[in-house]
Formats: sequence, structure tokens, C-alpha cells
Amino acid sequence: MKNSKKIDQLAVDNLKINALAAISKAQSGHSSITISAAKIFHALFFYNYHFDIKNPNWVARDRFVLSASQASALYYAMLRFCGLLSREQLEKFAQIDSDCKGSAVKSNTLGIDLTTAPLGQGIAMGVGLAISEAYLENKFPEASHYTYVLCSWADLQEGVAQEALAYAAENRLNKLIILFDSNGSDNSAFLKSKYSVDLKAKYTALNFNFVTIKDASARSISKAIKHAKHSNLPTIIEIKTAFGENIIKEDIGSLNGKYLEEAEIEELKDKTSFQKTDFFEIYSQVETAYKQRMQELHEKASRWTASDELLNFLNDEVKENINDIGISEHDNLYENAIVLINNLADKYNNILLASTNISSFNKIKSANGVFASNNRNGRALLLGLREFAMASITNGLASHSNIRPIVFCALTFSNYMLPAIRMSAIMKNKVLYVLTHDSVLAYDKGPSMQAIEQLAQLRSIPNLEILRPCDDNELRGAFEYYFNNAEGPVVISISEDIVKRFNETSKHPIKEGAYYLLENASPWTLISTGRDIEDLYDIANELNISLISASNIKNLNKLDFDYNRAISYESLTTFGWSKFAKYNLGVDSYVTGGNSKDVAKLLGIDKTSLKNKISKIIENNK
Amino acid sequence: MKNSKKIDQLAVDNLKINALAAISKAQSGHSSITISAAKIFHALFFYNYHFDIKNPNWVARDRFVLSASQASALYYAMLRFCGLLSREQLEKFAQIDSDCKGSAVKSNTLGIDLTTAPLGQGIAMGVGLAISEAYLENKFPEASHYTYVLCSWADLQEGVAQEALAYAAENRLNKLIILFDSNGSDNSAFLKSKYSVDLKAKYTALNFNFVTIKDASARSISKAIKHAKHSNLPTIIEIKTAFGENIIKEDIGSLNGKYLEEAEIEELKDKTSFQKTDFFEIYSQVETAYKQRMQELHEKASRWTASDELLNFLNDEVKENINDIGISEHDNLYENAIVLINNLADKYNNILLASTNISSFNKIKSANGVFASNNRNGRALLLGLREFAMASITNGLASHSNIRPIVFCALTFSNYMLPAIRMSAIMKNKVLYVLTHDSVLAYDKGPSMQAIEQLAQLRSIPNLEILRPCDDNELRGAFEYYFNNAEGPVVISISEDIVKRFNETSKHPIKEGAYYLLENASPWTLISTGRDIEDLYDIANELNISLISASNIKNLNKLDFDYNRAISYESLTTFGWSKFAKYNLGVDSYVTGGNSKDVAKLLGIDKTSLKNKISKIIENNK
Repeated sequence: MKNSKKIDQLAVDNLKINALAAISKAQSGHSSITISAAKIFHALFFYNYHFDIKNPNWVARDRFVLSASQASALYYAMLRFCGLLSREQLEKFAQIDSDCKGSAVKSNTLGIDLTTAPLGQGIAMGVGLAISEAYLENKFPEASHYTYVLCSWADLQEGVAQEALAYAAENRLNKLIILFDSNGSDNSAFLKSKYSVDLKAKYTALNFNFVTIKDASARSISKAIKHAKHSNLPTIIEIKTAFGENIIKEDIGSLNGKYLEEAEIEELKDKTSFQKTDFFEIYSQVETAYKQRMQELHEKASRWTASDELLNFLNDEVKENINDIGISEHDNLYENAIVLINNLADKYNNILLASTNISSFNKIKSANGVFASNNRNGRALLLGLREFAMASITNGLASHSNIRPIVFCALTFSNYMLPAIRMSAIMKNKVLYVLTHDSVLAYDKGPSMQAIEQLAQLRSIPNLEILRPCDDNELRGAFEYYFNNAEGPVVISISEDIVKRFNETSKHPIKEGAYYLLENASPWTLISTGRDIEDLYDIANELNISLISASNIKNLNKLDFDYNRAISYESLTTFGWSKFAKYNLGVDSYVTGGNSKDVAKLLGIDKTSLKNKISKIIENNK
Repeated sequence: MKNSKKIDQLAVDNLKINALAAISKAQSGHSSITISAAKIFHALFFYNYHFDIKNPNWVARDRFVLSASQASALYYAMLRFCGLLSREQLEKFAQIDSDCKGSAVKSNTLGIDLTTAPLGQGIAMGVGLAISEAYLENKFPEASHYTYVLCSWADLQEGVAQEALAYAAENRLNKLIILFDSNGSDNSAFLKSKYSVDLKAKYTALNFNFVTIKDASARSISKAIKHAKHSNLPTIIEIKTAFGENIIKEDIGSLNGKYLEEAEIEELKDKTSFQKTDFFEIYSQVETAYKQRMQELHEKASRWTASDELLNFLNDEVKENINDIGISEHDNLYENAIVLINNLADKYNNILLASTNISSFNKIKSANGVFASNNRNGRALLLGLREFAMASITNGLASHSNIRPIVFCALTFSNYMLPAIRMSAIMKNKVLYVLTHDSVLAYDKGPSMQAIEQLAQLRSIPNLEILRPCDDNELRGAFEYYFNNAEGPVVISISEDIVKRFNETSKHPIKEGAYYLLENASPWTLISTGRDIEDLYDIANELNISLISASNIKNLNKLDFDYNRAISYESLTTFGWSKFAKYNLGVDSYVTGGNSKDVAKLLGIDKTSLKNKISKIIENNK
């Protein structure tokens, strides 16, 4: 791997001009990071990144997360250097029919593991990849690799990044290497701050290996990366780059979020070693150097072999008849879900559990205990009160090889995780979110802890399947659905209340999402879900009307019932229910705290009040 | 203010037993922090906290935020010591008809400024209070006071707290004093961590005054608080407390979230100076000492006087005829909203602006520039990419005296702010959220930046009013509604697209939330909002049907139209629209990036496709 300094500079300038040209042609993109980070891409992909362009999904390849989403043109320009994209594809950057998107998008053919998320999340998803690696490498040394994240100032300001970095350092994820483009451009806020933070002191205190490169060049960056590989702590390499280097714009601050006009690129070009008239061309020296490097890497990768154990792990599909896994006779769904999860984790090495408070997992030994620097085999990730990072890290886990993560958390806190749950849905990551305390009656602490609108908010997310089982049978069905049928993220929403068992339920219909639990003669139909079925079951029988258990409400349209004579009820908001039933009972306001019986009465959702309301609706609409 | 060590100990023990008894009686609460933090409450409220129980809303009183919500019983027990609550009220702790809630609740009569939020947010709200103080104190020295926050490990793990603390330190909010109950109990996660963080090094690097107290007593804590008052940096006092001190439970880790049985309190009692049989009693020495202290404080407060300027500020109601404020003839709502906001900020000193990126405010000089340690008069809060903390800090601002904050941010990022927006709604804080780029067509970067489901998610929140104006007239009306009519938080959702002006709109009907923009003969009605009115306006005219502009969809039920012949459309999810119209057009899936024209065609929401779809619905349902 020989390369003169001259070719390094040429490659960096070439990459920069190509990417600026793509942005300029699309009239969309960010010039500042495109100028500053070109040398980082060359340092990483030419000198350090191990992968095989002939096998982009090679399990032992290095991983790269573009957390600084503004740099997507550079990333795609680099993938073209590597031979994975054509000039024509790059020229269509940010267009609807292009492979080069305005934000980098998950792609099996390009070896892009993760769709670029709103700022901060890329760092957390990178931590997720690094956890996966640490877990796998301990079992299968041949799966060892590094995880690189490119981030900006703005990424590091986000709380989700701070949560994830704290976890990464606590658990000594030493093969995580963060490349921090410290050009100070990405957020004007920071520039204004009078009292700058001593980053080295801060991240050293957090147990990071923190390195700063001033007057960065591709060579110095590459050297720092090579050092970082030997660190026994995770590394942050702060790369001080010149903001808008060689740019003569008056308002240089406006470079972020802006493209350069052709004439401006021309001006910039004159100050670089790139001298071609066609901004999209690649110098043959550069092309040859990259080809050679890709060939070397391919040959290296071809000599790699996987153990049978690793192959088994990678092919191990969790297709499960949940009856076999057993479920104990606890008297509530919460306890039973924990038993199920523990049993599943016991059986499948690719299930990793994530929780803010591990006391929920009462048998964590089955998952080999808590994941830690001295227990890489542990599959219980104990995140602390860092819900957002937990969900975002989980997206990283789910994007690595064959890992199936399960998140366990109170429904109220889905608000904290929402931006990451959204990314699960966008990427169709197979993540299971088990969300508990799913009722306004679950806590006595008042509105700040009440679940009211959260389930509706989740139901509004495309690609996200939500199941709210009403008893153990449906709970089993929900888990089977996730493991055997789901092709993206799934939420199982459960109650911690004591829940009845119904003879009429079975685990099977829940996969269809909605079915008649009771069929009675009346033209009226009650529709409910989860813990709230219990109350309506008795009412339906008493009033001799039918009851649909609609664990997945999206599937209600598969059933035949009279919309104008349908009454829905959940001990949650009615928001979104009008689509399925003309009459909607629920809770559309915040209430004061108190024990659940008092609160139910106050809200008019105790069984007596509900029966009265339902009778009245039927009476008034005969 | 003399008090023997003996009385200190008695007061602490008395407070602890009272609070444990309240928890025990309610069978709900957290014993661990109740045991550890009693001495912190005594140190703060007896020795340092300046307030006046006869005037709980005194503007210059100190502020206290209970971020560690688990300690609410202690807080209420302390307010009883101070004479603000009766024994009977404390005995009904956590009951539905009690003033002493399971989580502390905002109360004018008790001087509780903020309802306790899910963990982490209390710290950020405290930062908001401290910003308010710094701003006010600079204008009106007599309004000077301290802001105290009690937090736990779990609070500090949350990203929102990390974001807010970074901002507080960057801006040297030196009158912010964080009391950190470091008993290690609140989250088992941290205890498991092998590589503990050097907190002093970390927070010192962030520019905090960080103090650790080992073997904490009420005296040593009080002394540390007194020192902190003179710091020119914000302070964190880490108070190392013994976890479950004097408790003999086997599983001491389970103390969090648990109450003690009466016998257990009895056992604990024996190891304290509290020897009464009645757990709810107060020793007369303690009562007397507190009475004396409250009297002293009352006398001190009685000598306080406000300048006319401060009184004017406190009474200055922003009641505005927005026509007077003027609005320039920019060709899009985004620019016009900025002009409006800047003009309003120019006129009213109690408007504070918060944004992640101040480049949006093109005339920030009107708000006296960016708030900073050397510009306390600045009313533009430049948060950096810390959306969640921004919204949470804003709740603190809105809870202080007469400050009216405006948050400016892209709608997509409402996901990041959602837990704090929810708290605005719970507390009915008068906060204005101006959310931009409110359409799937707003960004070309693909799904991770697309607004699709976010507005529906906001609409599901109780107490939150959402206005999506379609042109400048409606924009003016939306601002007037917020300033003149709203009694809680308001979202104004706007487009950055070029938006037509309609002769038929006026600023007035928007306050009602929905009105006929076009009335035509057909029995069919189109319903739309915001930027999407523009397309439907032409279609409605061409098809000769009526068009309702439903800026606030909640108010659609005030209008008379045929549900079965109503068609709704937004370039957002249809989720939630079934309540108002039988036919719902919109976007219920994530799409690839690209320029907005291409994306609109792909989604079938370009004007031609929309017209075809609407015609077809009418055709098929004659």
C-alpha cells in the first residue's frame, strides 16, 4: 500500500470537486463538510477501511456510519472511487431515481448498513454496531472488525449521542472509532459560545481515548486511525479542519446547507491539485490506486474463512412456535412477557435484550447476564435512563448480521424513543419493542407518567406493526408474529395489570390482527384491545352484543361489521379510532394522579360507567 | 438563624419518617430517595431557600425544581414543615383528592413552579428558570434569586439533562445550583458499570463548579450551598448519601419504587432521633424552628420592593392586533413568520426566542441579540442541536413570571421535543411552537427528514392547540390566537414553500379554527389546511365544490357539512382524519428523496393526480 503524498492530495481534491459538482448539479446539499471532510474519507477508505466490494455484506467487514448526514455526497463520491457506483449515478445525486440520495440510504449492494438519521442518532447506531461486533467477536473471533462513525459538532450536541457515548465508554467498546470533523461550521451556536468546553478533558473523564489532530492531512488522520485501532478504550479523533478552506464566499457561514455555483467550484478548483475541466472526472492515477487497493482488500477477504459456528449463527432464523417456549402461569401479561423473553433469549444466541432498568428481567442469567467489558457474552444491555439512545443503539444492533434485539420499556417513554422508533420503521429493522404500562390506569403518579396518546402516536408511524394482546394466548401469538411473520419493527403493548384468560382466544388469530372474540345476535359490535378487553367482555355478554379483539387495529378492515353500529374502547386516547368505529370511548384529557379505581371512576371508564355509556349509545341510535 | 446540630438531626429524621409514613399509607412511592434526601431538603429549605409562605408567587423568591420525581413525598412533607400543607393533606399522599400527589404538581398556592416530568426534564426546566432569572435580574436587580434542582443519577443519564447542562455552563448560569443525590440507588445500571466516570473532571471540563460532599450532613450540605451562591459558574453539588441508611431489608436494591411496611418504619425509627409513636407527628422544637425561620423570611420579603419597571414587565400582557405589527410581503409563510416574530420580539420584552440554529432569525438584533454570559439582555436563545432540551428549557421559561417563549424548529424535529411538548400541555404552559417544513414535500433528503406523521402525533396530545395557516392572513390570525386567546401551548405549523394569498381569507376566522373558504353548490366538501389549501382551492373551483380551511381541525365539528360527502387532504398522514371526513387523501408511507415535484408525482399528490382522485371519489359515490 504505497502512495505518494502527491496522490493523496490529488485524491482528496478529486473527491472534493466530484462531490461539490454533484451537489451543485442537484442544487441541494452541504458544501462546508464536503470541503472539510474529503481528507477524512480518503484517510479512512483508502488506508484503513477493510471491506470487499465484491461482497458488500461480508460479516467481518468494517462498518461505517455517516452520522454527519450533510456529507452524503462525499460518501457516494467515495463509493464511486471504490468502484461501487458509476459516474452517471453520482451525477444524479439527490434525484428521485438515483442510487445517491441526499441522505445516505441503507443498501445491501453498497454496503451501507444504516440510513442516515437526524443528527445524533448516527453516533448511537454506531455504538449499536460496535456492541454487536464485541458480542460476536467474543464468540467468533473471525467476525472481528472496526466500527467507524463520521460526526460533526451538531451530532455531539444531541442528547442521544451523549447518552450513547457514555454507554460506549462505560462498556469499553474499544473498536469504536469516532471521526469528528471539527470544522466548527455545522452549528453557529457553538461558535458564539464564549466559554469553550475542554473536549479532551470531558471525553477523557468519560473514559474515551481522545485525540486531536491540528492541521489535519489524509496522512495524519490515517495515522491516528491506525493508533486508535490499538486503544483499549473507544476513540474519538477530533480532526480540526479549516472551515470553507479555499472558498472566497463573503458569507462563509452560509456554506452549510448551500451548494456552490459552477463558477465558485471553478475558483476553488484553481487552488487545488484538481485541474480537469470536467468536475465529475477521476484522475487515472487516483482510479488506479483505488483499484489496486480494492483488489488487495478483495484478496485479503477471499482468504477469510468462517467457522461452522459463525455460519450457524448467521443462518439461525428465530422461527418459533411459542407454545414450545412455554409461559408460566403468572397472573399478568407483564410477568408472562418477561418469562417468554427470558426463555427465548435462553434458546437463541442472536436475541439481545435492552432495558433501562434490568430489574425487569428477573432471570437475566438466561441471557448470559449483563453485557459488560468483562462479559462480552452478556446479552442483557443495561442502558440506564437513556431511552432514546437505547432505541437508537438497537437500530445499530438490528443492522448487524443476524441479531434480533428486544427493547423493554414503559409505553410512556416511547415518547423519548420516538425518533429512533421512526428510524426502525424507515429502515424496516426487525426490532421488537415490548412496551408496558399501556393504560391511563397504569400509574398513580398523574399525567406526566400516564399513557394516553402514546399508542396513537405509534400507530401513526408507517411500517410499524402494533399488537396489544389481551391475554396469554394473544401474547404468544404476538411473539410468534414478530419472529415468524414480521418484516419490520413490531411493538407489543402490554399491561402490568392482572389480566383474565379467555377460553375464546388463541394465539393464532392475533396474527391477522383482529377477530371476533364474542359473536352475538345484536347488530352492534364492540371493538377493543389488550387489557381493556376484560371489561368489555363482560359488558358484551351482558348486553348480548359482539366483541372484536383488535390487537392490530390496522387489520380491522378485514372484518365485516357495521361501522355505524360499532363502538370502540381503549383506556387511552380515542385519537385515530374514528376510522374503524362511529362511536369511540376512551380518555382524551390528562387526569390527576390517584389509585386506578378512583381514576377509572373519575374518567367514567370503570365497568359500570362503560356499560352505561354503551347502553346509552345503543339506546339513542336504535 | 441559630439551630443546634441536635435539632438539625431531629428535623431530618422527622421529615424522613413523616414522608415514609405518607408513602406507606399510600402504598405508593420510593423509599430509597426518601431516606437519603431528607437531609438535603432540610439543608436547602431551612438554611438557604428564600421565599415567603404568605406570598408563594413572589417573583424574587428562589425557585426549586424536583427533577428527582421519586422524592415527592419528601417535598410535600417539607412544605408541611413550612406551614403550607396540613397533616391531613400529607396523610392523603398520592390519593386522587389530595394536594400531595405521587408526582409533585405545579401549584400557585404551594409555590411549586413545575409539574414533575419524566426523568431528565426537571434539570432542563431548571435551566429554563435560571435563564429567566439571569435575563430578569439584568433588567431588574431586585428580581434576583437562585434556582435549585434536586436530581438523581437517573436524571443525569438522560440526554435532555446533558444537553441542558452543556447550555447552562456555556452561558455561565452561575445562580443555578444542582443538588445531586448521589446515593447510587436510582439506577442499577450505573452500579454495574466497571469503569466509573470521573464526574468532577467531566463537569469541570464543561465549565461547572463541581463539589462533592462525602459523609453528608444537613450542615455540610448547607455550607456547600452557601459557597455555591458565590460561584461565577453554575454549580453541581454531589451529595454522597448512604443508600437505604439504617434499613435492614434483605434486597436493599428493591427500595426504589417500594414503600416500607409499618413495621419496617418502626425498625428504622429506632435508629433515628425520631421517637414518637405517631409517624405523622412533628416535634414541637422542629415546628417552632421552622415557624421562626418562615417568619424571618416573611419579614425579609416584606421589606422587598419592586421597581415600576419590573411591575410593568410583570403586568405587560401581549395582547396584540397583529395588523399593527405589520408583515412584509415575502412570498412564503416561513419568511413572513420570521418577520412577525422579530417584530413582536422588538415590541415586547417578555418574548424570548429559542432556536437550534439562529440563522433562521434574520433580525435577531431586534431581540437584543443572542443570550450569552456577556449579553444577559439577549432574547434569542441559541440552543445548538439540542431540540429536546430546547423545548424543556422553554417550559422553565414559561413558568417564570411573565415570560412568553417562542420555539422555532422544523416539524420533523417535533419528535425530538415531544416529551417536553407533552409537559407544556400537561402544565398548560403558554409556549408557542412555530414548526416549519410541514409537508412530505418540504425536504428532498428522503424519509428521515420527511414530515409525515408528526402533525398527527401532535394532534393526539390533549390541551395542545395546533394551527396550520394557509396564507399570511391566517398566519396573522394564528399569532393573534396565541397571544390573545390561548390558555396553553400552541403549535403554528408552517410551510417554507411559496404560498398563494387568498382574497377570501382573513385573520379572524382562524381563531375559530375552521371556516368555509369557498362555498359552492355541490353537496361535496373538501377540507384541507395550511400549504395544501393552495392546490385544493383551484380544484374546488374547477369541480365547483366547497372548500373548508381547517387550520385547527379540532373545531371542524362546529361547521355543518356532510361527513359522508367530505374529502380531506394534507400532504401528510391521513391518520386521525376519519373523524372529520369519510374520504381521506394524504401520504401514509415513507418515500424516497428527490425534488418535490418528482416526489409529489410519485405519491400521486400533484395537483392533476389530486383532482383525478377527488373526481373519482365523487363519481363513485353519486
